[in-house]
This record gives sequence, C-alpha cells and structure tokens, in this order.
Amino acid sequence: MAVGIASTDFDVVRGVRLAAINCGLKTADDDLVLMELAEGSSVAGVFTKSWFSAAPVLVCKQHLSQGIPRLLLINSGNANAAVGDTGIADALACCESLAQLTGVKQEEILPFSTGVIGQRLEVQKIQSRLGDLASRLHESNWLDAAKGIMTTDTRPKIASRKKVIAGREVTITGIAKGSGMIQPDMATLLVYIATDAIIGQAELQQLLELSVNKSFNRITVDSDTSTNDSCMLVATGKSGATIVPDSSDYKEYAALLTELCVELAQGIIKDAEGATKFIEIKVVNGHSKESCLDVAYSVANSPLVKSALFACDANWGRIVMAIGKSKAKVNANRTDITIGDVCLMKQGTRSPDYSEAQGATVMAKEEIVITIDLNEGDACDTVWTSDLSYEYVRINAEYRT
Amino acid sequence: MAVGIASTDFDVVRGVRLAAINCGLKTADDDLVLMELAEGSSVAGVFTKSWFSAAPVLVCKQHLSQGIPRLLLINSGNANAAVGDTGIADALACCESLAQLTGVKQEEILPFSTGVIGQRLEVQKIQSRLGDLASRLHESNWLDAAKGIMTTDTRPKIASRKKVIAGREVTITGIAKGSGMIQPDMATLLVYIATDAIIGQAELQQLLELSVNKSFNRITVDSDTSTNDSCMLVATGKSGATIVPDSSDYKEYAALLTELCVELAQGIIKDAEGATKFIEIKVVNGHSKESCLDVAYSVANSPLVKSALFACDANWGRIVMAIGKSKAKVNANRTDITIGDVCLMKQGTRSPDYSEAQGATVMAKEEIVITIDLNEGDACDTVWTSDLSYEYVRINAEYRT
Repeated sequence: MAVGIASTDFDVVRGVRLAAINCGLKTADDDLVLMELAEGSSVAGVFTKSWFSAAPVLVCKQHLSQGIPRLLLINSGNANAAVGDTGIADALACCESLAQLTGVKQEEILPFSTGVIGQRLEVQKIQSRLGDLASRLHESNWLDAAKGIMTTDTRPKIASRKKVIAGREVTITGIAKGSGMIQPDMATLLVYIATDAIIGQAELQQLLELSVNKSFNRITVDSDTSTNDSCMLVATGKSGATIVPDSSDYKEYAALLTELCVELAQGIIKDAEGATKFIEIKVVNGHSKESCLDVAYSVANSPLVKSALFACDANWGRIVMAIGKSKAKVNANRTDITIGDVCLMKQGTRSPDYSEAQGATVMAKEEIVITIDLNEGDACDTVWTSDLSYEYVRINAEYRT
Repeated sequence: MAVGIASTDFDVVRGVRLAAINCGLKTADDDLVLMELAEGSSVAGVFTKSWFSAAPVLVCKQHLSQGIPRLLLINSGNANAAVGDTGIADALACCESLAQLTGVKQEEILPFSTGVIGQRLEVQKIQSRLGDLASRLHESNWLDAAKGIMTTDTRPKIASRKKVIAGREVTITGIAKGSGMIQPDMATLLVYIATDAIIGQAELQQLLELSVNKSFNRITVDSDTSTNDSCMLVATGKSGATIVPDSSDYKEYAALLTELCVELAQGIIKDAEGATKFIEIKVVNGHSKESCLDVAYSVANSPLVKSALFACDANWGRIVMAIGKSKAKVNANRTDITIGDVCLMKQGTRSPDYSEAQGATVMAKEEIVITIDLNEGDACDTVWTSDLSYEYVRINAEYRT
C-alpha cells in the first residue's frame, strides 16, 4: 500500500556518478549501491542517535573526521547492527576492497547498511561484485540507486530542485529509503542528497541540519528509531555557484534544500508500511515549538488515533486523549481541533456546528490535515505520519527487520 | 482474544454493598454500577494526569476534598469527557438524583464514567434506573459490578486476598476494567478495591499510591493514557484489624495489597485488546529505576517489537532497536537480552550458543519474559504488556472509543 503517486523524475548533478547492482543480500533486486563524488566536493552528514548505532554509522563518523569522502558504498538487506566488533571489521573490509579496486583511500570511503539487525554481513558477496559495480558508474543512475537502497519500501523516493542562485543554475537531487522503524531522532533514515553548488564544509553541515530538522525529523510511522539512520549531503561545486554564508543566496538555497528534503520525507510517509493515508498534524498557537512538537508526536504516534484514521473514523475523542497525555502543558478549555476545514472541537467540547456527516467526508480523503489550536501562545510545528492498518501488522509480523 | 483463563472467585468485604443494572448506555449488558460504603470508611483515590481529565474525575477530586464518600456511581458506555462544562453539570445531576433518593449528601457521592469520549452523557437514562439500582445493593454482587464497568474488555477482572494481620482476618477485594488506551500515568484505569481493615485516610492514600506504582503504573497496552483513569481504595474497618503505620502489620498489609493490585493489573494485560500474548519485560542492573523503566517502556510500546511478538518471531534486532532509542543511557557493548531461559544477545552481539530453534521454542509460549540486562548498576524494574495483532487494529478501527 502507498498513498498517491510518486514521481520518478530527477536531474543529474554534475560531479556525482552512481551505480547499483544485485550482490545476493536480497533475492533479486539491486542491493548494493555506489556513489562517486568529484574531487573537491564537500560532504555533510547526520546520523542516528541510537545507543545501538550500527557499525557502518560508527565507521562513517570515524572516516568523516579523517578526510573528505570520495565514495559512498550502501547495501540493503542487512543492517550490520548489533553484531559487536565484527560489524566494524566487516564494514572496514568492504571499504578496504573498494579502496584496492579504485585507488581511493580507505578513509575516503563511507559504508552504509540497512536491513535485518543482528545478522553478520556477508562481506564476500559484496566484495565479489565491487568491480562490476564500479564499472557501471554513471551520472544518470540516480533512480537505480534509489531502488537499490529499498527494503520494505514499495517504491523509490527521489526528488530534484533546480534554480538560478548566485548567478548560476544550481541543481539539488536526493534519494531516500525507509517505510517502517521511522521516527528519526535528530538524524534520519538513509538519505543521499547531492548538489553542484560550491558550499564550504561547515556551512554544508549547518544547511543539512537545518533542513533535516524541518523534514526528516518531523516524520513518524511507528515511533521507532532505526539503528542505521544516516543522511548525507554532498556539494560538488561543479555549477560554479558559490553560496556565501548569511547572504540572500544562502537563504534562497536553504529554502530550496528544505523544500527537497520535505518532499523526500513526505515521500517516505506516503510509502510507510501499510499506509492508506497521509496525515499532516499541525499544532498551532502553543507556548513553544517543543510543546507543539510534543503534542503533535503524541497524536501522531497514538495507536488508537492511527487505527481510527485507518477506519476513516472522525474519532476526535482519541485525538483529545492523545493531546491530554502529552507532556506539554495544555489548557483543555482552550483547545480546538479541526480536520481539513471542519472544526470538530471548539474550546474543549464538540463544536456546535459539527455533524458526523462532515467528519465522515473529511476522513474519507487520502490526505488529511489535522490542526490542533492550543490558543496559548504563538509557536507552531508540524509532523507528518501515516495510519495503522492490518497491513502494517502483517508486514511486521512476516518480515524479519 | 485473551491470554489464559481468569478466575472469577472473590471474597465479600464487610461494609461494602454493590449493585449493577442496565440503563441503556450500552445495548444489553449492565452499564451502571453502585458501590455503597459503610459509615466510617476511609477512601483513597488516584486519578489520570491527562490535561483532558474527564468531568467525573474533576468532580471526584472536588468531592473527595469535601467529605468522606459513601456512594460510588459508575457508568460504562460514555466517558463524559471533552464535553466542556456540561460534563460537570451532568455528573453533578446524577449525584444530586442519587442524593435525593438515598439521603446521602451530594458531596459524599463520587461519579465515574468510561466509554466514548466527546458525547454528552444521557443523564435521564441513568436517573431513571437509580431506584432499581439502589434496591439491588448486596455485599455479594462484586462480580456483577466487575462486569458492569466493562467496555471492550472480554472478561471481568476480579481478585481477592485474605490474611490474618494485626490478629484479625483481613480481606481485600478489587475489580478493574480496561483493555485499550492503557498506559496509566501515575494513576490508572477504573479500579475499585475494598478492604475491611481499619486504616486512616493518610495511610490509605499512601498504601494505594505505593501499590499502584508497582502494578497499574507498570502496564501498557498501546502507550495511550485515558482521560478517565481512576483507582479507588476503600477501608471499611469492619474486620477490627487496625493497620498501624510503620508496623510490621503495615508492611505485611502493603505487600498483600500490592499482590492484589498486580493480579488485577496483569489481568488487564491478559485481556488487552487483541492480545494473544502476555509479556513481562524485566530490565535489570541499570543505573536507576527511571532508566530501567524508560528502557522497559521503549520496548513494551514499540509497534515493531509488538508485531514480532504477535508473529512468535524471536526478532531480537527489534528489541535492540527499541533499547537503542530509549532516553536512558545504554552501553551497547554490555547489554544482554534473554527471552525465557534463552540468551539471544550477549554484550551487544548474538549469543554464540543461540540458535533460531531455541528462539522459536520460547516465542511459541503464551506468556513470555524478556530480560534486558544493562550490566551497569544495581537498579531494576518491570513492565507488563501485550502484543500487537490484527485484532487490535480491527477492534480500534471498528469501535468508537
């Protein structure tokens, strides 16, 4: 199941070449992806904050501190997580083989994994296909790469933006995967974004964190946070457009990058495990952004609210319950709940104009906006989520993550 | 669905009479319950901390501050929550009618409601049956009362304890309801416990809070916290056994009360919405009780862990994920995971002796203990939960809570 239709259009990014191949970790589909970055690129990354961060996440952080990456090697089908020190050794072994093959230094290679947790990575399967993989590198292979990193995803997530900034045409293209175990924590799933703008390392990291906090850090499928979440942003500089910090170009570029990240993040929710609906939860007029977010996640992660959404039931009592259990201080007698353009609850009680027929109409839609007005301050925040269906349970009862 | 078989045996408590009747809030089953407490009883209560505490919860707190309750009036089928000030007026109207009928002061009557949120209480239906209800009061009606407070519960929860304390035989009997919207927060669902011991008001409240924190505040079905949670403990004094604070009798009595609360709390989990399994999550050797609880709830509330439990899949990778996302500081390389008597993960990696066959055997059981050893300190805590089944989604997609 998935909500709506996803575009597979994209623009190439000068300075980035990609390849995808099957190496046998998954049965038939591509499960090994290589991204090659032009010399002189800047690279920024954010990673999961899980106490059980996977081995490749630890290696990535280490390598990022030692040099500027030239190659990104990503496998799906096995997360290389919760395997102790052997996981680190296995990730390094893949980097070492790729280094020997390509002449790139081992610390300039970043490894990424996604899939089953707790099983040893079959390094030889990966190593045996690296030569073929490298020979396929081409700047037009973004969609193959987007497919190659999928696990329970039913479709690839890819997005591009093009705009003239600093007098030159700048391109940003990104791919993402993930459909369950999704509530990224100050980091994200697997996301790879490249741009041909010229951006220094420090600014690139700042831009990435800013955009991630407005996109991937605002989505939840099931409140669960992966051990392998990683989001990389590469700037190859090949457009010749220099993004100067604190300039109007910088602001324009930041907005463009955020727009692309939001499209990818929403794409993940629309393809969430078992999703039949795409839900935007807007909390407005709260005391602080933190309290708005707390209320939004409390509603977005409530199994009772999510079951009602699946059933197209305008069960605002459960939304009330979920707001009520949030840690943020809420004044019940001031709170309004609106779904779409229908106000269901006004000042803590059923809106006098509300009818069940109105509720049924707005809930029948595939994309639904729930607005919670706390009427207490001027802060607001938004979270995107999916519903809880039989299919979510089936997928996760049958699939060994 | 429900796990195991529940006993319906109980002992009467001198000084408490009960009655149940149908007043039309539910189709056929009893939905209105009355408990009469002998003059001179002590009464203690704990309530939901929801920001949207239901009207009867607010009235209960008010009445408890004004006098010692003599009557408890409980309806199922309608929560009388999120209905604004009319909810308070409706709860008071029920108390007033009952006061007129019985001669008991209005502020000595406590109202309780459970059921659909956001719909106005049909007060006349309740008022019209109060006479018949009061005429049925009898000390042997505990099981009828337990049935009368049910909503999506598939069976009543009732438990008794008898023991000679302070030289006299003391009885404690309690009933509880609840099977969804269950993660009580320093309070609990609907629970009514009575004892014939002589216990002062302050000690009774202390005893109740102590027991609740080891029982009802250690369970979760779906991480959702109700607007109506209430737990009442009544001491009628009719046994003549005086429980003196800080005495060995007090400790013995506290242990007995906690034992009864744990039985009722576990009874709720065994009858949780869609439950096919009863899971005990023990977190041991943590830095603090708080960090142990945080890890335990992170695992207990993870939809991915709960789906795996439903599928009898010893998917310890998901337990690792859930531990990893907890706020408590965890050292991945020290953590062990044991299910039943099978160690699956040792020091952050797959246990060398573990086989999938062993995992399949322990997961096939209906009652499962998951032990997470953090190997960092000497604190421990335990949480009880259920699995996430198709049936949970079906119940909550079809039922208007």
